[in-house]
Parts: sequence; structure tokens; C-alpha cells
Amino acid sequence: MPVKVDEPAPHRFSTGKEVRLACRSGSFRGPTSGHCPSQIQTNLLVIPSRFADDFRGLCKRNPVSCPLIAESLAPGNTGLSRDVAEDVDVRTDAPGYNIYKDGKLYAKDVRDCKEWWAEDSVAFLIGCSFTFEQALVDAGLTPRHQELERNVPMYRTNIPLCPSGIFSGTMVVSMRPYKPEKVDAVRAVTRPYIHTHGEPVAWGPDAVAQLGIADLLNPEFGEAPVLREGEVPVFWGCGVTPQVVVMSSPELIGFSIGHGPGKMLCLDKEIKDILE
Amino acid sequence: MPVKVDEPAPHRFSTGKEVRLACRSGSFRGPTSGHCPSQIQTNLLVIPSRFADDFRGLCKRNPVSCPLIAESLAPGNTGLSRDVAEDVDVRTDAPGYNIYKDGKLYAKDVRDCKEWWAEDSVAFLIGCSFTFEQALVDAGLTPRHQELERNVPMYRTNIPLCPSGIFSGTMVVSMRPYKPEKVDAVRAVTRPYIHTHGEPVAWGPDAVAQLGIADLLNPEFGEAPVLREGEVPVFWGCGVTPQVVVMSSPELIGFSIGHGPGKMLCLDKEIKDILE
Repeated sequence: MPVKVDEPAPHRFSTGKEVRLACRSGSFRGPTSGHCPSQIQTNLLVIPSRFADDFRGLCKRNPVSCPLIAESLAPGNTGLSRDVAEDVDVRTDAPGYNIYKDGKLYAKDVRDCKEWWAEDSVAFLIGCSFTFEQALVDAGLTPRHQELERNVPMYRTNIPLCPSGIFSGTMVVSMRPYKPEKVDAVRAVTRPYIHTHGEPVAWGPDAVAQLGIADLLNPEFGEAPVLREGEVPVFWGCGVTPQVVVMSSPELIGFSIGHGPGKMLCLDKEIKDILE
Repeated sequence: MPVKVDEPAPHRFSTGKEVRLACRSGSFRGPTSGHCPSQIQTNLLVIPSRFADDFRGLCKRNPVSCPLIAESLAPGNTGLSRDVAEDVDVRTDAPGYNIYKDGKLYAKDVRDCKEWWAEDSVAFLIGCSFTFEQALVDAGLTPRHQELERNVPMYRTNIPLCPSGIFSGTMVVSMRPYKPEKVDAVRAVTRPYIHTHGEPVAWGPDAVAQLGIADLLNPEFGEAPVLREGEVPVFWGCGVTPQVVVMSSPELIGFSIGHGPGKMLCLDKEIKDILE
């Protein structure tokens, strides 16, 4: 796959609202890493309301991979509370959606999910590691996929989630490569972002085996990584985890909706307001 | 090991305060399962204050095994906030303590930990699964170890915690055996106790392999289990986890203090006030 290092960076949206409107009009369909750098980006999961309590429990029990930021105002309501994002329609405002039927992928990266949204649909917004990437850039630790304008590589792992009601599964992680001597700094920069995955879950030469990742160069989601000489992989919890949960929970009957991996719903809420 | 099924049950304390005073006077040194059934029981970890932020982060990232209920009023202060427990001395009010030096077990099940308490000691109180046992009793699902007046069996697993600063390690679990057809009810009864480990993390015939438990009949903490014909093990997160973390975190230099496994610090706070 050609690496676009010499191309000029495309237009970057400054605010979550700009991203949302561009998605809604269909003019933007790309990954959102690097856009609206002072505002929160989120993963999405939409499920029938009868499963909502179990999913809230899953988030409470697994806050590293599933940090719950917000949810629908009410079942069927496509908006969010005003302090999170104004004038939002969760069915149209992400760059792409994956549709699941009875836990099986049914349609991939569709432009909107209006057709599958139901009266009892509840949308859950899960924190995203893109939220701490500007802090890495500011610290001189720019993530490789931002530098190369690629989607971040994401992997299934063998780390079990703590189950909640009908939901179970294993953790998905995102990966950014760094030199070993930079890992302490990378950990420290991302540690305060506890509501958007926080510090890494594993790093270094043994981490691939430790997480049960089959092939580092072939991620299950996003694009292949580009590691330079001497670099080691550093892995963070990833909000694609709920989509693996959907596929691992046979009692989840009906349509579920996720965002396209790397294609986030961008909010108005400021990152500085959720740091710990 | 003889099973004391025909012996009369010993005196049970009704309140956390009664347990604490009996521990303080040295008249009670036993496991606390079944005592003060309407009040919260907690695991204990005492560490030097310079590591406190990292440990708080560990609790936030791993709330199933390390649900943080309370902590010292200030470094060196042996009390807790009044809504948790009045007139408490965390150095004397549990039935027994384990002492660790530089992450290695240094003294086991000592009567009090005054000798190792320091000016910068901070005590963390972690939720305990004993807190939901009365609900199991009330539902006709009495835990076997309560019935037999034994300590609950506890096991190391291979499930990695999400690391936080200097702290990492693997989850410890407690085990109660049930018939397979009772597992759904057991899960439902314990699910609301999200601040005291909540519902099980694994159950059934495959759970021992899934958790990497070496030998079900030889738990690392507590007493051996008694399974009856057709029963399967059901495993919950366990607040002994921080003591395994102490032993897995080489940067933790100095004295740390834990409770004796199964020998909890009993509080005044009511269980009904922390249900979700």
C-alpha cells in the first residue's frame, strides 16, 4: 500500500460541528484522527433499548475499552444532551456506519444509518483515543498514522472483558509505534485521559504475544501499521470493542449500529473538561 | 480437611462496629463472611502516599477487581470519613494483616499493623464480595463456604489488569460453586453490587481453563472448595487483587499492608446505599 508521506495534508476541520455537518452533507467520509483537536471524538454503538442496562453495566465494568461519555436523550431520540453536542443527529453525523443484524455484520461503512434506526434505538457514545493525540503531537510524540494520514491500526485481543448481562467479548486495542525510550513519556502524556482509554494497556516486544494478536502487520480494523527500525508497538484500549461485543453476544437479537472504525462522531465537549 | 457441617454456627456479629471492636481487642481473628450482613465489608491496601495517584488510577481502570470504596482521611491518618465508618483505626480493626516489604510477603496474618504504619501511609478500602452474600442467602443461594463456616477459596488468574503508573498484575477471583441451572439467578442477584465486584467474571466447566487457574482444589488464598455433584465453579473479582499487584510491581519500594484474605475491615455504611 503506498504511503502518502509527500502529499500535502488535506483540510482539517477545527470543530466537531464542522465535522458533523460535513458528514451529514456527505462531503466527508474519512477517518477523523487529527480533526477538531480540542474537542472529544467518540465511538458509537446503537442497540435496542431492552439491552441498554446490560450495556451500561458493560461500560461500568470495562471503562478502559468502553468509557461511556454520553447516550441518547431517550430511546428513539437522535440527539444528545446539549453540553455534549448541540444540533446533532447520531444517524448521519459520523463519516460512516457499520450495521449488524443478530450480531453479524450486515452492511459496512454506509453513509448514514437512518434505515436501521428504530423507535427503541439507544445510542451510546464511547471515548476514543484520538482525543489524546493532540497532546502526543504537542509533546513531540506525533502518532505515526497522523503523520502518514492513515487510519490507526486496531486489533482483536484475547483479553476477556468482564461480562455484563447478555454482553461479553474481548478487548480491541489501537496501536501506535514508538522507540522504547519514549514509552514512559507516551504513558505519562496519555494517563490523564482516563475517560478516553487513558494510558496504554501493553507495550514493548512481548506485547503482541501477551495480547494474543495474530499478526501485527495485518490489523483487523483500520490500516496496516508503519513501524520504523527499533520501534515497539504500544497498545491502548479501543472503542471498537463494543462492535466485537455485538458479534460475541448471541442474545443480542435485532439490528445494532456501530461507527466505521476510525470514523468518529465528533462532539462539542472540550477535552480539557474531562481530564483527571 | 474435616468439614464442620454438624457444628453449631459460632456467634455472628450484627454490625461492622462490633466486628471492629472485637478485632481491636484481639478477641476475633476469623474470616468475616456472614457477619454484619447489612453493612459493607472491605479489602485493605496500605501504601506510601507517593504511589497513591497511581493506585487510584488502577482502581478506576479495574473497577471489577478493585472497586474503591474509601481511603484514608489524609496520609498517616488512621481514620475514615464518618459516612463510611466512625471511630475506626485501620491499623487494628481487621481480623488480620499481611505485611509486604518491597513487594515480598514479610509477615502473614499479624494481629495489627501498627509497627509498619508510617507518617505517609495511605489506606485504600476495596469492595468485597461478602457484601452480596446475604442477598444470595435471601434468594436461597447460600454460598457453600458460609454454609460450612469456611473461608472462601480465592485464586490467581491469568487475566491482566489494565496497568496504571507503577502498578500492574493479574486478577484474583473468589469462587462459589452452584448447579448450572442456578447460574442465571446467581448472576442476576449479584449484578446490582457493582461497587463490590458485581456479577461473576466467569463460570461453568470451561472457566477454570479460561482463567488459567492451575488447580481448582488448591486455591492460593482461603480454604479449599467443597463442590457437590454436578456443580460448576462461579468466579467473581476479588479484592485480594491489590496484594498480587503489590507483588507484581517492582517499583513499589517500602512497606505495604494488606488484610488477611477473607478477613475484612467491616464498615458502618449500609449495603443498600451502594446498590445500582
